[in-house]
Amino acid sequence: MIDAIERRLGQRGGRVRRSVGDDAAVVDAGGSVAVTSLDSFVEGVHFSLATHSPADVGHSALAAALSDLAAMGAAPGEVFVGIALSSEFGEQRALELIDAMEALAKRVGATIAGGDVVRSPALSVTVSVTGWAADAGDLVYRDGARAGDLIGVTGRLGGSGAGRLLLSGLRADLSAGARNGLVTRHLRPQPRLRCGRELARAGVSAMIDVSDGVATDAGHLARRSGVELCVALDRLPLADGVIKVARAAQRDPTELAATMGDDYELLVTAPPNVRARVQRAAGDGDSELTWIGEVGRGEGARLIGAGGKDVELQGYEHR
Amino acid sequence: MIDAIERRLGQRGGRVRRSVGDDAAVVDAGGSVAVTSLDSFVEGVHFSLATHSPADVGHSALAAALSDLAAMGAAPGEVFVGIALSSEFGEQRALELIDAMEALAKRVGATIAGGDVVRSPALSVTVSVTGWAADAGDLVYRDGARAGDLIGVTGRLGGSGAGRLLLSGLRADLSAGARNGLVTRHLRPQPRLRCGRELARAGVSAMIDVSDGVATDAGHLARRSGVELCVALDRLPLADGVIKVARAAQRDPTELAATMGDDYELLVTAPPNVRARVQRAAGDGDSELTWIGEVGRGEGARLIGAGGKDVELQGYEHR
Repeated sequence: MIDAIERRLGQRGGRVRRSVGDDAAVVDAGGSVAVTSLDSFVEGVHFSLATHSPADVGHSALAAALSDLAAMGAAPGEVFVGIALSSEFGEQRALELIDAMEALAKRVGATIAGGDVVRSPALSVTVSVTGWAADAGDLVYRDGARAGDLIGVTGRLGGSGAGRLLLSGLRADLSAGARNGLVTRHLRPQPRLRCGRELARAGVSAMIDVSDGVATDAGHLARRSGVELCVALDRLPLADGVIKVARAAQRDPTELAATMGDDYELLVTAPPNVRARVQRAAGDGDSELTWIGEVGRGEGARLIGAGGKDVELQGYEHR
Repeated sequence: MIDAIERRLGQRGGRVRRSVGDDAAVVDAGGSVAVTSLDSFVEGVHFSLATHSPADVGHSALAAALSDLAAMGAAPGEVFVGIALSSEFGEQRALELIDAMEALAKRVGATIAGGDVVRSPALSVTVSVTGWAADAGDLVYRDGARAGDLIGVTGRLGGSGAGRLLLSGLRADLSAGARNGLVTRHLRPQPRLRCGRELARAGVSAMIDVSDGVATDAGHLARRSGVELCVALDRLPLADGVIKVARAAQRDPTELAATMGDDYELLVTAPPNVRARVQRAAGDGDSELTWIGEVGRGEGARLIGAGGKDVELQGYEHR
């Protein structure tokens, strides 16, 4: 569908450097470039009010949009919010939703600068975020991966997916603290804005945020770059508690971490000669980086399991 | 609700010149300023698939968003579209919707640069548009009206509202051509982008687009400027056919034209000394301008009817 749309769209005015197909669009603004991404979140599709408070909805919608700016290496700027309110979702809850967005915006230095509030049969939130960079060359796109590059991922994976399973009623052998950590990871994801900028400066060749799961997002990056991303599944860094949750769900922990998405970590490729610099940059961005594979000359994502066997994983396409 | 939200929001980074409360937000981008507005349109609330084709939905959603840029005097730039598709609204119809947006974007020189497509129980379209100006001082805001200014409006009013009544089944004594003209006015509104820029250059003191109807929008402008807008209802320029439709609906044509909204004409205030220049500017913008009142020292909108009596009109708050 997105591909079909992309083929129908033309560009005018000469300002647009990047449009559909990357994490965000890049527009030349004269003295700087504007980086914009728009995301929609619908009750019953992307979240449920049975598990998400209004504040969780507001936070996670903005976090997901900001994560696209992180994946470009842009500094966050302005936020525009469209809220479609169902009749059951009253004004008080709408303000709780906004308050959580405002708290996150404040923490990352962004400004909620406008939007629209309308009535609707279903609650939904659409967030448009604009970030800024001095020059389009300072940003990192999905299409820069080259054969021979290393593949890295920030933080740990599977925490959000495990939290989602727990919220949906799964019982696992976890302490209250561990359970809470995973649930918070799902309800309150943190966009890796600082880390994204540090990684861009350190010279990563391509970057994407892990919203659909590494299995799917590695495929997106591979297709845009015209290369193959070979990911060693046993090298994926798992969040604490994911193994226990996977056991309770009778699933493979690595498969869970690679496919459930919503971790909003950053997946990067980097030439071997900047390996140490990129690793340090992740630390400067208050995260850690794990090398999980290599870029090859093929196409798409190749997921390598135990014993070097190729694994087919169905990614969780959450939007 | 919007006021309650506005009170809760802070600003960071020093780039935001205007945020919530005007037609669009204004952000300093270094060599230029970005002007952004976001609008949401929901099936069953803002339009009905019983009367709107997918192309009508796409066109009118983008036209309404672009109209906010017109009301700032900004040149259109980039468009970001969030489409929430109901299961009945298939891919083919979604592409028809996008094609109509792309056709309008092309005609006004804008670029659809990104967006999101999600599933939803209800069809909705959220459009974020960004326009550009060399300097924030080149734009026109809602808060610049001063006592003694004249009030003008572009084009003719009531056409869209009359078209909506006809679409909803009203029978009126109209030729097929006249009926079609009114229906088209409702389904395919035209944003006054060129006219907005000409009026800004000519020195209007405040400007707003007529989306909710003059009765309501004059009130918005008056409140933001801290003045009173006195509008003589008998001076409102009526679109052809509005009198006949109003007669069929047993309504006063002037009341219909002042309250039904969706005309997307521009309401301006201007000091008397630029009167002739402003009038010429509207002509240069392929429109016409009618003077409909004066700005006074009171507050809010004052609607003056036959015999100089004040009239209370309930505006059509369509979002």
